[in-house]
Amino acid sequence: MALQYNEFYHRNTGLTIGIENTLFSERSSFQLTEIYQTDTWGKLLVIDGMVMLSEQDEFVYHEMLAHVPLNAHPNPEQVLIIGGGDGGTAREVLKHPSVKHVDLVEIDETVIRACREHMPEVGDWENPRLNVKVANGIDHIKQSENQYDVILVDGSDPVGPAVDLFRKEFYSYCHQALKADGVMATQCESPWVDSYHPHMKEVSDAMKELFLVHRPYLASIPLYPAGLWCFMLGSKSEDPCSDESLERARINTTDTGWSLRYYNPDIHRSAFSLPNFVREIFIS
Amino acid sequence: MALQYNEFYHRNTGLTIGIENTLFSERSSFQLTEIYQTDTWGKLLVIDGMVMLSEQDEFVYHEMLAHVPLNAHPNPEQVLIIGGGDGGTAREVLKHPSVKHVDLVEIDETVIRACREHMPEVGDWENPRLNVKVANGIDHIKQSENQYDVILVDGSDPVGPAVDLFRKEFYSYCHQALKADGVMATQCESPWVDSYHPHMKEVSDAMKELFLVHRPYLASIPLYPAGLWCFMLGSKSEDPCSDESLERARINTTDTGWSLRYYNPDIHRSAFSLPNFVREIFIS
Repeated sequence: MALQYNEFYHRNTGLTIGIENTLFSERSSFQLTEIYQTDTWGKLLVIDGMVMLSEQDEFVYHEMLAHVPLNAHPNPEQVLIIGGGDGGTAREVLKHPSVKHVDLVEIDETVIRACREHMPEVGDWENPRLNVKVANGIDHIKQSENQYDVILVDGSDPVGPAVDLFRKEFYSYCHQALKADGVMATQCESPWVDSYHPHMKEVSDAMKELFLVHRPYLASIPLYPAGLWCFMLGSKSEDPCSDESLERARINTTDTGWSLRYYNPDIHRSAFSLPNFVREIFIS
Repeated sequence: MALQYNEFYHRNTGLTIGIENTLFSERSSFQLTEIYQTDTWGKLLVIDGMVMLSEQDEFVYHEMLAHVPLNAHPNPEQVLIIGGGDGGTAREVLKHPSVKHVDLVEIDETVIRACREHMPEVGDWENPRLNVKVANGIDHIKQSENQYDVILVDGSDPVGPAVDLFRKEFYSYCHQALKADGVMATQCESPWVDSYHPHMKEVSDAMKELFLVHRPYLASIPLYPAGLWCFMLGSKSEDPCSDESLERARINTTDTGWSLRYYNPDIHRSAFSLPNFVREIFIS
């Protein structure tokens, strides 16, 4: 017997992963959360039939969602993560010694429970600077004003409970919740998948209107559709490609013992270089 | 009925592509060549069960294999392509007005015939500067000395007829066939697939010993295993990251009407930035 996980991003085209066994499967009022043992990528977290992470490749997504915006901020102390119930983004954020407090606001406690039980090493759950709250991230952020240095949006794809995370209204709440030199970043889908382009453009247009600087950046994530993933960064003041940001990237990754497997100062800069076909998504 | 193409790079893990019908299937004394109509990526060329290209994503591989080394050379006139029977690499090379002559040496005429018939627009077959020769590329290069400005190795994976293209002896022939300021580049597998690492290291070590400058670079290729692909560049004189190389990249892509979909000067520079886990492959 060979059990396979298949995720199709267009008709019959997509990803196939060999599965050894199912470790967790539970449907909440929000979504279906599953964890599988795979033949190649360690354990795999799947929500509503979409890969969220595997143990073997999660470092890319989490390092890139956390360190690019955090190093774009002169002194990140207060950080909000919306979603991110697997704990990986918080783990990377907590590597920054400047960070005093992280609010992780995840809508579905099932995700947290599943990940803490089956892939605890993805998170840094016992860190005293981490505050985990099970709540709707949009409700949380509506009530926040001038509170955070950095906001990271670590939601799933624009279907199900995450759909509102791709709308302009949400970014205006984020803008309001950030301090005067605040920075935010969000995952922003695959440029190789045409059906994502309207969402990517909507996020880009919203950030362009709200923030002084807005920039898409890219990373190679093998288990996401077509293997290339986009993030969108918005900053109220500093450019993430400034010499100061790159210098912070250098300092924070030199002799700090952070054990990074993807991110380095070269990657910080290069991630903002877009192939022509990706540029076209945002100007069309 | 739903026909699927499955390519596994580790046990039951890999790529699935929806297939509408088979356009070509022929076994030569070297390999099995197939062309399929897919549901997402246009026509698909498969050799011995490995995706070579699709019409929708081939621009990445061909632009990156051609323009990075050609812009690293001060005046590329004589170019050799080993493999590349689909014609895509030659098409990109021939965009450079400095190029006077391209030898395309493909071992298997079946590949050329299949591609000219079923995906003719991938190539620039009628270009008078293109000389197509059906022969063993290694035999051809053994007989060449101080002849080429640029050599591009566009072979398949290190199994079957392409296995010798990953050995040091081959690179010493390339070095000998290049002029004093010659540049070469070869496709060099996926850094995400552990079983490729010894081949990547072998190519890197061979180039390091033979060339003044050797540098790996990366591109996002969605239909290659894990979606990230490595190339290796060797140069007898100029650094591909020099200001002069970047200036040539800028000139050659500005107002030239080249219709590039991936490559631009930013990408030329950024492609050489390696994630930490990729750096480790070459220093281990």
